[in-house]
Amino acid sequence: MRIQIDVAMQYRFTRPNTIFLTIEAAKCAGQTVTYENLYVGDIPINRIAGDSGVGQRVWAQVPWNELSMSYKAQVDVTRQPVALERLSAVPVHLIPAEVAPYLRPSRYCQSDKFGAFVEKRFGNLQGGQKVAAMRSWIEANLTYVPGSSDADTNVLETFAGRQGVCRDYAHLMCTMVRAAQIPARMVAAYSPDIMPPDFHAIAEVWLDGDWHMVDATGMCSADSTAIIAVGRDAYDIAFLDSQVPAEMLYQSVFVTRI
Amino acid sequence: MRIQIDVAMQYRFTRPNTIFLTIEAAKCAGQTVTYENLYVGDIPINRIAGDSGVGQRVWAQVPWNELSMSYKAQVDVTRQPVALERLSAVPVHLIPAEVAPYLRPSRYCQSDKFGAFVEKRFGNLQGGQKVAAMRSWIEANLTYVPGSSDADTNVLETFAGRQGVCRDYAHLMCTMVRAAQIPARMVAAYSPDIMPPDFHAIAEVWLDGDWHMVDATGMCSADSTAIIAVGRDAYDIAFLDSQVPAEMLYQSVFVTRI
Amino acid sequence: MRIQIDVAMQYRFTRPNTIFLTIEAAKCAGQTVTYENLYVGDIPINRIAGDSGVGQRVWAQVPWNELSMSYKAQVDVTRQPVALERLSAVPVHLIPAEVAPYLRPSRYCQSDKFGAFVEKRFGNLQGGQKVAAMRSWIEANLTYVPGSSDADTNVLETFAGRQGVCRDYAHLMCTMVRAAQIPARMVAAYSPDIMPPDFHAIAEVWLDGDWHMVDATGMCSADSTAIIAVGRDAYDIAFLDSQVPAEMLYQSVFVTRI
Amino acid sequence: MRIQIDVAMQYRFTRPNTIFLTIEAAKCAGQTVTYENLYVGDIPINRIAGDSGVGQRVWAQVPWNELSMSYKAQVDVTRQPVALERLSAVPVHLIPAEVAPYLRPSRYCQSDKFGAFVEKRFGNLQGGQKVAAMRSWIEANLTYVPGSSDADTNVLETFAGRQGVCRDYAHLMCTMVRAAQIPARMVAAYSPDIMPPDFHAIAEVWLDGDWHMVDATGMCSADSTAIIAVGRDAYDIAFLDSQVPAEMLYQSVFVTRI
Repeated sequence: MRIQIDVAMQYRFTRPNTIFLTIEAAKCAGQTVTYENLYVGDIPINRIAGDSGVGQRVWAQVPWNELSMSYKAQVDVTRQPVALERLSAVPVHLIPAEVAPYLRPSRYCQSDKFGAFVEKRFGNLQGGQKVAAMRSWIEANLTYVPGSSDADTNVLETFAGRQGVCRDYAHLMCTMVRAAQIPARMVAAYSPDIMPPDFHAIAEVWLDGDWHMVDATGMCSADSTAIIAVGRDAYDIAFLDSQVPAEMLYQSVFVTRI
Repeated sequence: MRIQIDVAMQYRFTRPNTIFLTIEAAKCAGQTVTYENLYVGDIPINRIAGDSGVGQRVWAQVPWNELSMSYKAQVDVTRQPVALERLSAVPVHLIPAEVAPYLRPSRYCQSDKFGAFVEKRFGNLQGGQKVAAMRSWIEANLTYVPGSSDADTNVLETFAGRQGVCRDYAHLMCTMVRAAQIPARMVAAYSPDIMPPDFHAIAEVWLDGDWHMVDATGMCSADSTAIIAVGRDAYDIAFLDSQVPAEMLYQSVFVTRI
Repeated sequence: MRIQIDVAMQYRFTRPNTIFLTIEAAKCAGQTVTYENLYVGDIPINRIAGDSGVGQRVWAQVPWNELSMSYKAQVDVTRQPVALERLSAVPVHLIPAEVAPYLRPSRYCQSDKFGAFVEKRFGNLQGGQKVAAMRSWIEANLTYVPGSSDADTNVLETFAGRQGVCRDYAHLMCTMVRAAQIPARMVAAYSPDIMPPDFHAIAEVWLDGDWHMVDATGMCSADSTAIIAVGRDAYDIAFLDSQVPAEMLYQSVFVTRI
Repeated sequence: MRIQIDVAMQYRFTRPNTIFLTIEAAKCAGQTVTYENLYVGDIPINRIAGDSGVGQRVWAQVPWNELSMSYKAQVDVTRQPVALERLSAVPVHLIPAEVAPYLRPSRYCQSDKFGAFVEKRFGNLQGGQKVAAMRSWIEANLTYVPGSSDADTNVLETFAGRQGVCRDYAHLMCTMVRAAQIPARMVAAYSPDIMPPDFHAIAEVWLDGDWHMVDATGMCSADSTAIIAVGRDAYDIAFLDSQVPAEMLYQSVFVTRI
C-alpha cells in the first residue's frame, strides 16, 4: 500500500540551539520510500542512523529562536500483517546481543514491576498467543482519552489510570511483553488511520526471530504503517528533542492512502 | 472476644534521639483495654492522642544508642463484624470535616490516579457493595508474599506488582475506596490470626456514618482485632519512627485469644 | 492591613457532580473577615470546617455541567511578620497531637528522603535560624517559572528541577522543614503581592508553640496575607476538587490593598 | 597494571530458569585479558556481545534451583588516567548514532528533570571542566553509606537523599552529564581499590570523541580498573539478571594488583 505523508510544524525556542528531529520515514524492510523531502530552511543539518540502525535522525542547528519545518514523503508499505498467535517466542538464551536491551526496563516502562501480574494473567499462554492476549487486554482495559497523559506519564500511572493516548498504549504493551521475557520496543510511525491525524506510537515485539508490529490501540495495521524510528520508549523516539524549552506554534500531520 | 498482646523489641540507633512509638492498643469504641503495661525502661516519655483522636502515641527520649521495649496488654474486643454489602455510602456533600481528609491521596496512596479504573471496574456498584467488591478484587488479584515490598513501596507499584504484605493490601484498599469518593483510612492493629505473628495493617472505610474495618488479606476479623492507631497511610501509623537510622536487634509480636 | 478579594471563575464538568471549594478566607487568629460573599448560584451547599479547624470549605452540588462562581471579601490582616531567626523549635517530645501529622511526608512531599541533605546543609543551625536558612536556600536555588510544573509535580522533581511556582516553593519548604523534625504545613492564601494575581500557596512552620508563615518565593508578607486553608500539601488545599474532569473556562483572582 | 579477579557466588532460585550473567572482563581498548576462567558447572551457556559491543554476556540455563559460579581472570590494564579538564565536549550535532542514546534518560536516571539545576550550577563551564566540576560536586555532596539504597533507588531519590553506594554515584554522574548534553553511560567494572571488595559501578563520559572513565566516589582509577560492561544505567549492567526471584547464598569478589 502506498501512503503519502505531509508534515508541517513551526516551533519557537527560548534560544538558538541544536535540535534532534526524528520525522523521516525509515528505509527498512517492509517499506520503500519512493519520494521524500525534508525542509528545515537554510540551516546546517547532520544525519545519523537511528537506534538499532533503524531509520535516520537529523541534528539541526537552529540559529534563531524559531523554526519552520516540513516533511513530505511517499512510502510503499509492503509488509504484511501477521497473525501474532502463530508466532513463537525465541527461548531467551538465544536472544542476540542487538535485541537483548529490549528485554529491560526504561525511563517510562518499569517492566521490572510487572512480573507477577503478567505471570498471573498470561502465564498459561506462550509466545505470540501471550502477546496477542496482552494486546487484547490493553485494548479492553484502557480508554483512549486525548489529553489524559503528558510527556511525563510513566507506565505505572498508565496501568493504574486505565487511560491514555498511543504512547501510553505502546508503553504498556512493551512493558507487559518485556515482563514476560519477550523483547519489545517502541516504534514511531506514520499511519493513515490515526484520528485525529498525528505522529503515532506503536510497539514491536520480537517473535520467531524478527520484529512484528503490534498496535494496542487497534487503530492501525502493519500494511499501511510506515516506521520512522525505534527505541526503548517514548523518549527514544520523540519527533523533536530540543535543548531548551520549545513552544509549538503550529503542527499538522497528514497521512493518506494514495 | 478477649485477646492478649505481648510485644518485645530491641533497637539500636546511630545516636540518642527521640522516638515515636505507636504500639499501645487504643481505648476506643469496640474495644476495652483491661490491662496494659508499656515498658521502655527509665527514660522520659510523653503521651499524645493519635491522629483523628484514635488511641495514643508515645514520644520517648532515648538517651542511649539502644533501647529494649515491651508492651503487654489484654483487650476485650466487643465490635461485631458487619456485612459491608448492607452499608450505604454517605453522599459526599454530607462528609464531615474530620472525615474529609480521608478522601484524599497520601504519601503511598496516589488515589488521584485510580479514578478511571475504579469507575470502569466498580462503577455499577454502590456504597458497601462497591467496597466489598473491591475487597474481593484485591484478595483475588494480589498474592501475599513476605519480603516482596519494603517501607518505600507505593500503591502504584503494588497495583502493578500484584503482590505485597498487609500494608500493601491496605494501601490498595484505601486507594480504590478513596478513588470512588468514599473515605478510607489506614489502621494499625493487633490480631491473633496473623501468620507469621506481627503488627498488622488493615483499612477502615466510612459507610453509613461510621468507620468499618476491612481486611483485604482476609486474615483477620473485626471481632478479634484491636486497633492501635489510624492515619492516611502506612507512614502515619508506623509502630516506630525514629529520627536516625534504626537497626532491629530483636522483635516479637504475639497475640492470642484468651 | 485591609485587603479586598475578588475571585470569579467558570468551570465546565464532564457531568453533574459535587465539588469541594476551598476559596473562602478563614476566620482565624491574625485576620478578620469584615465582609464576604460567596456566589455559586442557586445550588445546594454544605460548609464544613477546614483541616486542623482552619477556615471552612464548601461542598457544592452542581446539577449542571457548568458552574459560575464568585467570591468577594474584605479582610483585616492584623498578624505581624515575625523574625524567624528569633524563634525556637519545640523539642519533638513536646509536639502535641494536632501538630504531629505535620512532621510526616505526604502525597507530594517525600520528606523522608531529605534527612541527609538537611542534616548536611543545615545541621549546624537550630530552630528558626534553620528555617530561615532553608527559606533563603530555596529562594536562591529555585527559579520561579510559570508553567514549569503541573498538579502532578512532586518535591523530588522540584528539588532536581530547581524551578516551579508557589506550590513547588511551598512543597520544598515544608519538605525540608519536616526533614529537620520541625512541623510544617501548606497554606492556601490570598495576597495582594502575587504577580500575576492568583491563588497563592505558602508554608507555615511550627516554632515556639505557634504557626508562622514562610513564603519561600519572597513575594508576600504575613501582614497582608489572608489564609484560606491549611493541609499537608497542595492536594489538601486545592481551591477546587471535583469528582470528574473539570475544564477552566474563566478564572480571575484579584487581591488589592484598600 | 595487572590485576587479578576472583569471584565466587552461589544463588538459589525459586525455580529453574535462564539467567543473564555480566561478570566477564571485557576484551576492549585499554585492557587485555591474559587469563580467564568462568565456571558455572555443566550447564548450557550462550555468549553474546554486550551493549554497544563492549564485553560479552552469558545466557546460562540453570536446570536446578541453585547455582554455584566462579570467575577468575587476570587483566592487564593499559589505559592511562586522563585529565578531564583538558578534554572538550563534542558539539551535539556531531554526536554519532552509536553514542546518541547515551544523551537520554533511562530507568533510574531521569536526566530530563535536571536541566535547570545543571545550567545554574555548571552553566559557565564547558566540556571536561564541566564534567570535572560535576564529579567534584557529587563527591562533596554525597556520602557513601552502604545499605542506604537498594536496586529500586532512582536518581531523584539519590539527589535528594545525598547518600548512596557506587551505583548511585554513577547514576547521578550520568544524569548530570546527560542533562548538560554530553553523552554518559554506566560501566560495570572490577577495581582493586573498592572497600569492601565488590562489583563496582562507575560512569564513562564521551569527550573529544572517546569514552573516558569517571568515578564520582573517588575510589578507583582508570589505570587499575577493568571494564565488564556498559549500558544506560544499573539495570543494563546488572551482574546477574534472573527470571525468577534469586536469593544470594554466598558471594565474594576479590580484586588485587599483581
